Amino acid sequence: MNPFDAASPFDARYYFADPDFFARLHPYVSEFAQVRYLARVEAALAETLAENRVCSKGVAEEIAKACAAVTPEEVYEEERCIQHNIRALVNCIGKRVSPDARRFVHLFATSADIMDTARALCLTEVTRNVLMPGLVALLRQLIAMARAHAETPQMGRTHGQHAVPLTFGFAVAQYVSRIGQRMETIDRAAKNLRGKFAGAVGAYNALSLLTSDPAKVEAALMRKLGLQPPDISTQVTQPEYVADYVYALASCWGVFANLADDFRHLQRSEIRELRDRKAADPNAAVVGSSTMPHKVNPKDFENVKSLWKAYVPRLLTVLMDQVSEHQRDLTNSASMRFVTEFVAAFAYAVHRLSGSLDAVEPDVARMREVLEAGKDPVTAEPLYVLLALHGHPDAHEAARVLARDARVQGRPLAELAASSREIAPYLAKLTAAQRKVLDDPARYFGTATEVTRALCDAWEKKLGSERAG
Amino acid sequence: MNPFDAASPFDARYYFADPDFFARLHPYVSEFAQVRYLARVEAALAETLAENRVCSKGVAEEIAKACAAVTPEEVYEEERCIQHNIRALVNCIGKRVSPDARRFVHLFATSADIMDTARALCLTEVTRNVLMPGLVALLRQLIAMARAHAETPQMGRTHGQHAVPLTFGFAVAQYVSRIGQRMETIDRAAKNLRGKFAGAVGAYNALSLLTSDPAKVEAALMRKLGLQPPDISTQVTQPEYVADYVYALASCWGVFANLADDFRHLQRSEIRELRDRKAADPNAAVVGSSTMPHKVNPKDFENVKSLWKAYVPRLLTVLMDQVSEHQRDLTNSASMRFVTEFVAAFAYAVHRLSGSLDAVEPDVARMREVLEAGKDPVTAEPLYVLLALHGHPDAHEAARVLARDARVQGRPLAELAASSREIAPYLAKLTAAQRKVLDDPARYFGTATEVTRALCDAWEKKLGSERAG
Amino acid sequence: MNPFDAASPFDARYYFADPDFFARLHPYVSEFAQVRYLARVEAALAETLAENRVCSKGVAEEIAKACAAVTPEEVYEEERCIQHNIRALVNCIGKRVSPDARRFVHLFATSADIMDTARALCLTEVTRNVLMPGLVALLRQLIAMARAHAETPQMGRTHGQHAVPLTFGFAVAQYVSRIGQRMETIDRAAKNLRGKFAGAVGAYNALSLLTSDPAKVEAALMRKLGLQPPDISTQVTQPEYVADYVYALASCWGVFANLADDFRHLQRSEIRELRDRKAADPNAAVVGSSTMPHKVNPKDFENVKSLWKAYVPRLLTVLMDQVSEHQRDLTNSASMRFVTEFVAAFAYAVHRLSGSLDAVEPDVARMREVLEAGKDPVTAEPLYVLLALHGHPDAHEAARVLARDARVQGRPLAELAASSREIAPYLAKLTAAQRKVLDDPARYFGTATEVTRALCDAWEKKLGSERAG
Amino acid sequence: MNPFDAASPFDARYYFADPDFFARLHPYVSEFAQVRYLARVEAALAETLAENRVCSKGVAEEIAKACAAVTPEEVYEEERCIQHNIRALVNCIGKRVSPDARRFVHLFATSADIMDTARALCLTEVTRNVLMPGLVALLRQLIAMARAHAETPQMGRTHGQHAVPLTFGFAVAQYVSRIGQRMETIDRAAKNLRGKFAGAVGAYNALSLLTSDPAKVEAALMRKLGLQPPDISTQVTQPEYVADYVYALASCWGVFANLADDFRHLQRSEIRELRDRKAADPNAAVVGSSTMPHKVNPKDFENVKSLWKAYVPRLLTVLMDQVSEHQRDLTNSASMRFVTEFVAAFAYAVHRLSGSLDAVEPDVARMREVLEAGKDPVTAEPLYVLLALHGHPDAHEAARVLARDARVQGRPLAELAASSREIAPYLAKLTAAQRKVLDDPARYFGTATEVTRALCDAWEKKLGSERAG
Repeated sequence: MNPFDAASPFDARYYFADPDFFARLHPYVSEFAQVRYLARVEAALAETLAENRVCSKGVAEEIAKACAAVTPEEVYEEERCIQHNIRALVNCIGKRVSPDARRFVHLFATSADIMDTARALCLTEVTRNVLMPGLVALLRQLIAMARAHAETPQMGRTHGQHAVPLTFGFAVAQYVSRIGQRMETIDRAAKNLRGKFAGAVGAYNALSLLTSDPAKVEAALMRKLGLQPPDISTQVTQPEYVADYVYALASCWGVFANLADDFRHLQRSEIRELRDRKAADPNAAVVGSSTMPHKVNPKDFENVKSLWKAYVPRLLTVLMDQVSEHQRDLTNSASMRFVTEFVAAFAYAVHRLSGSLDAVEPDVARMREVLEAGKDPVTAEPLYVLLALHGHPDAHEAARVLARDARVQGRPLAELAASSREIAPYLAKLTAAQRKVLDDPARYFGTATEVTRALCDAWEKKLGSERAG
Repeated sequence: MNPFDAASPFDARYYFADPDFFARLHPYVSEFAQVRYLARVEAALAETLAENRVCSKGVAEEIAKACAAVTPEEVYEEERCIQHNIRALVNCIGKRVSPDARRFVHLFATSADIMDTARALCLTEVTRNVLMPGLVALLRQLIAMARAHAETPQMGRTHGQHAVPLTFGFAVAQYVSRIGQRMETIDRAAKNLRGKFAGAVGAYNALSLLTSDPAKVEAALMRKLGLQPPDISTQVTQPEYVADYVYALASCWGVFANLADDFRHLQRSEIRELRDRKAADPNAAVVGSSTMPHKVNPKDFENVKSLWKAYVPRLLTVLMDQVSEHQRDLTNSASMRFVTEFVAAFAYAVHRLSGSLDAVEPDVARMREVLEAGKDPVTAEPLYVLLALHGHPDAHEAARVLARDARVQGRPLAELAASSREIAPYLAKLTAAQRKVLDDPARYFGTATEVTRALCDAWEKKLGSERAG
Repeated sequence: MNPFDAASPFDARYYFADPDFFARLHPYVSEFAQVRYLARVEAALAETLAENRVCSKGVAEEIAKACAAVTPEEVYEEERCIQHNIRALVNCIGKRVSPDARRFVHLFATSADIMDTARALCLTEVTRNVLMPGLVALLRQLIAMARAHAETPQMGRTHGQHAVPLTFGFAVAQYVSRIGQRMETIDRAAKNLRGKFAGAVGAYNALSLLTSDPAKVEAALMRKLGLQPPDISTQVTQPEYVADYVYALASCWGVFANLADDFRHLQRSEIRELRDRKAADPNAAVVGSSTMPHKVNPKDFENVKSLWKAYVPRLLTVLMDQVSEHQRDLTNSASMRFVTEFVAAFAYAVHRLSGSLDAVEPDVARMREVLEAGKDPVTAEPLYVLLALHGHPDAHEAARVLARDARVQGRPLAELAASSREIAPYLAKLTAAQRKVLDDPARYFGTATEVTRALCDAWEKKLGSERAG
Repeated sequence: MNPFDAASPFDARYYFADPDFFARLHPYVSEFAQVRYLARVEAALAETLAENRVCSKGVAEEIAKACAAVTPEEVYEEERCIQHNIRALVNCIGKRVSPDARRFVHLFATSADIMDTARALCLTEVTRNVLMPGLVALLRQLIAMARAHAETPQMGRTHGQHAVPLTFGFAVAQYVSRIGQRMETIDRAAKNLRGKFAGAVGAYNALSLLTSDPAKVEAALMRKLGLQPPDISTQVTQPEYVADYVYALASCWGVFANLADDFRHLQRSEIRELRDRKAADPNAAVVGSSTMPHKVNPKDFENVKSLWKAYVPRLLTVLMDQVSEHQRDLTNSASMRFVTEFVAAFAYAVHRLSGSLDAVEPDVARMREVLEAGKDPVTAEPLYVLLALHGHPDAHEAARVLARDARVQGRPLAELAASSREIAPYLAKLTAAQRKVLDDPARYFGTATEVTRALCDAWEKKLGSERAG
C-alpha cells in the first residue's frame, strides 16, 4: 500500500502529500485514530465499571492496557469474520485480557455508545488541538495585515464598480470579525458535542440491571472523557450536536471562500492591488503554466475556494442524517463517517489559506494609483449629502444628473459641479472641511482606520494568550 | 389577480389556501410586509437624525407619517421608472412630505442599510410573534403526549427490527428534547440578527460628514429597532447572521421530518401502533384515495417530510451567498429574498405538524400486543448481561448462539436458555429480581418512564409561562 | 388578494411584477393552470373510455365540456370538505354532468394517473411553447454577437491573469455551443416525460376489470395527449423522467450563471471591455445606488447569477424524491409541486439574461487597449513553442526564465529575448511569419475567428427556422 | 503508509478494506492511475505529433516508452520543487528521453489539454470496464428475481397502508426498468465525454504555429484515444459533459436508495416478507449487535442508502464547477478531482447492492399471509369500479361509506356490501368473473404477471450478450 493507491483525492493530493499536515492530523482523522478513540472509550467504560464496583480496579487496568495495545489490523481481521466492527474490537480487547476481565469489556454498552462517544471525543480534541490553534494563527495573520494597512487608502468596490474609498486594512478587518465570530461558533459547537451510554434504545435497559440511577453512571463516564452528558438519546446521540458542528465549519469555510475570492480578484492583471511575492523573486523556480511561461497564478486562493465547493454541499448529508427511524436505522452510519474527513479537509483549508496569505503583499502604490484614477465620480456621494445638508430638496437627483453628464460627456464631475448654477448657492454654504472632502475624495473613507484599529484591539484581547498552531 | 394566479406552490397551496395561516403570516412575509418594514426603518432613521439634530423633530414626524402611508403599489410603479427599489421607496416617501423634509429622507443611508436592517427586524419579529409561539404550542403537545404515555410499553426498533422495549412516552420525549433545543438555537440566532447603518462600503463614509463617532449613531438606530449593532460591515451585513438563522430553522425542520417519519411508520398497516382518529369516525367524509375507497393515509405527516425535502437544500443558497466580492456584489440580492419564504414555509410546517399530532392517537393495546408477540428474543440482551455479571467469560457469544438456535429452530429462547447445561450454573446465581426480568422482557425498558418524566418537567420549567400560538 | 400579498419572492418580484412575463407563463405554471391540466387529462380519459366503448361518445363530450368549465375556486372549496384534491376535482366535474355520465368521470384512474400525466403534459407544453422559443431567441442573440466580433481581438484570461489572446466573438461562441447543447438536452428530456394510466399500484388492477390488454388503453390515452407511454409504473410515474428534465434546466442555468459572471467581470471599472448602454445615455433616468449617484451597476447579470444560486440546490429535492417507499409514499407530493416554479423561474432567467445581453455592448477600442498594454509577456508562449520547434531542448524553461526576469526587472520580454545569447541561435532560424508572431503577439489568437464562424454556421443551421419567442 | 492511515472513510472502510474491489478499481481511480492516464495522453500526443511530422516516429516511441515508465513518486517529487503538477510530469518524462526528444514532450499542449483528456479517457474506461459490467450483473439478478416471482402475490402498499395487490416480481420489475434506463443514461453520458487539445485559451494559439487546421489535429488525437472531439473549448473542456455523467450516476444511485429502502422495510419485524438468508443459517457466526445477541439487521441495504446520502449532494459541486471565469479560473481544479472518488463509490454501491440482493430471499408464505389478512378492505376498489360500470352514479362514495363502516364497526366489507340494499341491484348485475374478483381480492392484481414477464423479456433482449462483471 502506498499513498498513490488512494482513491480519495483528499488522501492522495493533500493529506498524504504534505508530511507535516499528515503528522498533525493523523492522530485524529485516520482510520487508525478511529480505532484508538473507540478503544479509549472502552477503557474509560471499564474504569467507570470499576468505580461502580462492577469489576475490580485491576480488571479495569487490565482492560485499559489491552485497549492501548489493540491494533486496527486485528480489529479489521476479526470484523471480516463476524461482520460487526464494535464486537470485533471488543473481541480483540477480550483476547488480550484474562477470562475474568473479558466479561467486563463493553458490558452494558451498545456499539453506538462507544462510537458516538468516540466521535464526540475525537472532534472535541481535534478542534482544540488542531483547528483552533490553526484558526488563531490565521486570525493573528489577518489582524497584523489589517493593522499594517489601517490607513492605506483603497478604492471600494460594489458590483465590481468603483464605489467610495475605504482602507485596505478595513477590508481585511471584515475577515478578522467574520472569522473571529466563526471561531466562537466552532468552539461552542465543539464543546456541546455529546456522547452517550444509554444502551440499545436509549432507555438504559441493560444498565438498569445494575443501578436505579443509570444516568448518573453515564454522566460519570462522559465527565471522565471531558464531555457533557446528553439530555436523552435513542440508540444514538441526537444528531443535531454533530450537525451544529459541521455547520459551524461549513459556514466558516464560506468566509474563507469569500476571502480567497477577494484576494484573487485583487490580483487580476488589470487590478494588481495584491502582488504574489514569488512574482518578484529573481530566483523563482515555480512554474505557473505548462505552456505559458510568463504565468504567475493565485492558485492557492483558488484551491481554498475549490475545496469549499467540494465540501460545503456535504452539509446536506449531515442534515439528511437527522432522520433515523424509531430508535435508529443504520442509514446514517456510513454517511456519518465522512464527518472526520470534513474536519480534516477544513483543517487543510485553514492551513492552505494561511500559506496563501503569507504569499501575497498589498501594492500600496498601485492602490493609490487606482484610487486616484477613479476618484472623480466618487465625489458624487459627498456632494449629494452636503447639498442635502445645506438645503437642496432633491440633492441625490441633482448629483445623479451631474455624474451622468460627467460620464457621458467625459468631463470631470468636479468641474461640472463647480459650473452648475443650480447648485452654486448650496456649494457656497460649504465649510472648509466639507469643501476639502470634495476636493480630495481619495480621503473620503470615513472612519475606516478607527474602526479597523478598534476591531483589531477587541479581537486581540479576545484571543488573549491563545496558542496559535 | 387571484390566489390561483400564483406560480409558487407555497403561495397557492399552503399560504393563500389557509386563511388563518395567511392572516398570521401576512404581516411579516408578504411583499406588502417587506415594503412596510423598509418604511419603518426609514422612519426610524429620520427619528435618529432628529435626535442627532440633523433635522427637526417635526420633520422626523412628517417622514414617519409618510412612511406609514406609503404603498407597495406606488413604490413598484416608481421602481419601473428608475429601476431601483429603495430609491423608489425614498422618492415615494419624498413625494408625501414637504420639500424641506424630503432632503432628510434616507440621508446618509445606502440601500443595504435599509434592506438589511429591515430583514433583521422582520425576522426577529416573525420569530418572536409567530414561530416561537407555534413551537411552544407544539412542544406542549409533545410534552403532554410523552407524559400521558410515560409508562406505556412499546417495542423498541433499530434497523426496523425489534430491539429491546421502551415506552411510547420515552420515544416522544426524544422529540421534546430535540425540538426544545432547536427552539433555543432558533431563538439565539434570531436575537443575534443585525442591521447596519454604515453606508455604501461600510466605512461610514457619508455619516462621517456629520459626526466623528458614526458607529454611535448606528448603534442608536439599531437599539431603537430592538436590534444589536454589528461588529463591522461592508455594504451589507455579515451574511453569517442570517445563515445561522436559516440553519437553525433547517435543522429544526429535520427533527420534524424524523418525527413525521416515525409517526407514519407507526401507522403502517402491519404495525398500527398509532391510529388516525378520523379512521374511527363513523361520520368521516374524508376521502383517502380517488380510486381506493378504503384508504386512510397519513398524508399530513407525509406533507411535513415532503416540505422538508423541498426546503432543506435551500440552506445551500444561503451558504453560497456568504461569498460576495469586495464590498459586495449583488449576486446575493435575489437569492436572499427567499429567506422570508423559507420562514413562512417553516411556520407552515410547524402548523401542519401540530395538526398532524392532534389527528393521531396511540393504540396502547396494539403496542402491548406487538410487544408480547415479539418479546421472547428480546431476552437475549438481559440474559447476556446477567450471565456476564455472574461470571460467564463469553456471555454475549453464548446468548447469541442461543438466540440464533431459537430463531432457526423456531423455539422460544427462554426455553433453550433454561435447558442449556452450559449456562445453567450462571442462571442459578440470578436473584429473584433478575429472574423476573428474564421472565417478563416486556417490562425490560430500563428507566424510560423516569427519564421521560424528568425531561418533561425540565422542559416545562424552561417554557415557564411562554405563550403558545 | 393582490400581488403584494404573495410570500414567494418569485411571485411577488418577478412573475406578478412583469405583466408580459406573467401573461406568457400563467397558462402553464399558475395554480389555475394546474387545475386546467388536470381537467384536460380527465377529459382525455373520458374520450378514451368512449373509444373503448365503456361510455358513449356523448357522455365523453359531456364530461369534456364539464372539464373545460370547472374552476379552481370550486375545486378548492370541495377539497376543503373531503381533504382530497383529485377526488375534489372529480366531484366538481361530476356535479356538472348528468348522473349517468358522472359514473364515468375518472373511472379506472387513480389520482396519480391524472396528476403525473398532467405534469408531463404541462412541462412538455411549457417547454415547447415558452422555454424553447426563449432559448432560440437567446441563442440567436449570442450568435449575432459572436459573429459581429469574430475578429475583435481580446486578451484571454485564466486565473484572472492575462494569458494569451483570443477574439471576443470566440469567447461568446463558447456560450453558443454550451447553451445550444443544453437546449438539445432540455428538448430531449421534455420529449421523454411520461404520464401513466396504470392505477393504484401500477398493475392496472382496475383497468383489468375492463380489458385483458390495459397497457394498450394506457398507450392510447398517452398518445392522445402527445406523450409516450411508460415502461412500467408504481402508483406514480418513474421519478427519473422529471429528474432528467429538472437537471437539464439546472445545468443550462449553470451556463447562464457563467455567462453572467463573465460579462459582469468584463464591466469591472478596471476592465471596462463591456459597456452598459445606459451608462452612455445622456437622458438616462435610471438610478444605480440610493446613495452613490454615479453608480451604474450590472445588476441584471447579477440577478441571473443570484437566481441560479436560489434554484440550483433544489435539484436535490428532485433527487430525494426518487426514493418513495413500495408502491409510493406521499413524501414526494408537496415537493414535486415546486417543479413548475422551477420551470417558471428558469423561464424568467432566460428572459432576464436576454435583456441583459441587449443592454451591453463590447468596447472594441478598450479591448484593444488592454491587449496592447498586456501583450508583451504573452510572447512567452509562442517564443517557447518556436524555440522548441527549432531545436531548443528546454525551451519552456528558457522562456520561463526570460519572462521571470522581464517581470522582475521591469523590462520588455521581447527585449530580453532579443539580447539573450543562449537563445539567439534558435531565434535566427525563425521564418518571417514566425517572427511576425513574436513581433505582434496581439495577433496571436490562433483560429479564434474561423472556429467562431464555423460554430455559428453550424448552430444556425441546427436552429433552422426554429421560432424564437 | 498503511490503509489505516487514510483519512477518507471511503479509502479506509470500503476501498482498501475489500481486496477484490480494490483490485478492480485501482487501475482507474487511484492517484497512481491518474498519473498513468496523464502519461498515456502525453504519449498519444507525441504519436500525433509524429503523424503530423513535427517529430520523428522514433522520437514518439521514445516518449511513449518514457510515459509508460514514469512513476507518481518522481512526479510528486518534482511537483514539490516547481509547484505545477503537469509540468512536473513533463519534466519527468523529459528526463527519461534524449534532449532532442525532450523538446517534443507536451509541445503545443496546455495542462488542461492533458488533464481533461485524461479524465475523459479514464471515466470512459472505468465505465466500460467496471461500472457497466457490474450494472449488467445487477440487472440480471433483478430480472431473475422478477421472473421467479412474477406470480407471487403480495399486498401493494401506498403511504405505508395496504392498497391493492400486485406480485412481488412486479415490484422488482420496477427496478429492472428504472436501473435499465439509468444504465442507458450512464452509457450515453460516458460516450459523450470529451477531451481537448486546443491550448491555453481554447483558440489553438500554439497549434496554429504548426498548421492552419489545428482542429483536425485535435480530432485525430481524440480519435486515437477513442474519444469524440469537442465542439469548442476554453482552457478547459466544457463542464457539462462531466456534469451529465455525474448526474447519470447520481440519479442511478437514487434508484438504488429506493430499492434498498423497499427491501429493508420488507424485512421489518412486523412485515417479514423478505428474509435474511443468514438468519436461517444454523451455523451463522455473524453478530448483529454488540449488546443485543438476537439481532439480524439489514445493514447492507442500509449502507447503500447511507452512501447515497454521502454522495448525492456532491452533484452540486459539479454544478458549481460549471462557473469558471473567462477562459477559466482554477476554482474547479481541486473540486473536479473528486469525480473519480464519486465513480469509485458508485462502483462500490453497485457491488454492495448486488451482495445485499444475494443475501435475502422472499418469504412467499408470509407474503400470502399478509395479503390474506389484509385483503378484505381491498375489495373496495373493484367494488366501486364494478358498481360504476353497472350504473351506480356515485359508486366511489357508496364504496367509501361501506369501507368506512366496515372499519369503524370492525365488520368485513364483503359482508356489509352483501347486505346493503342500496347497492344490491347493481351487485345483481355482476358477471361470474366479476363476482369472483370480489370474492377473492387476493387475486386482484391486474396484469402484474404479464407486465413483469414482458418487461424482463425486453430488458434481457437489450442486454443481449452484454458481459456481466
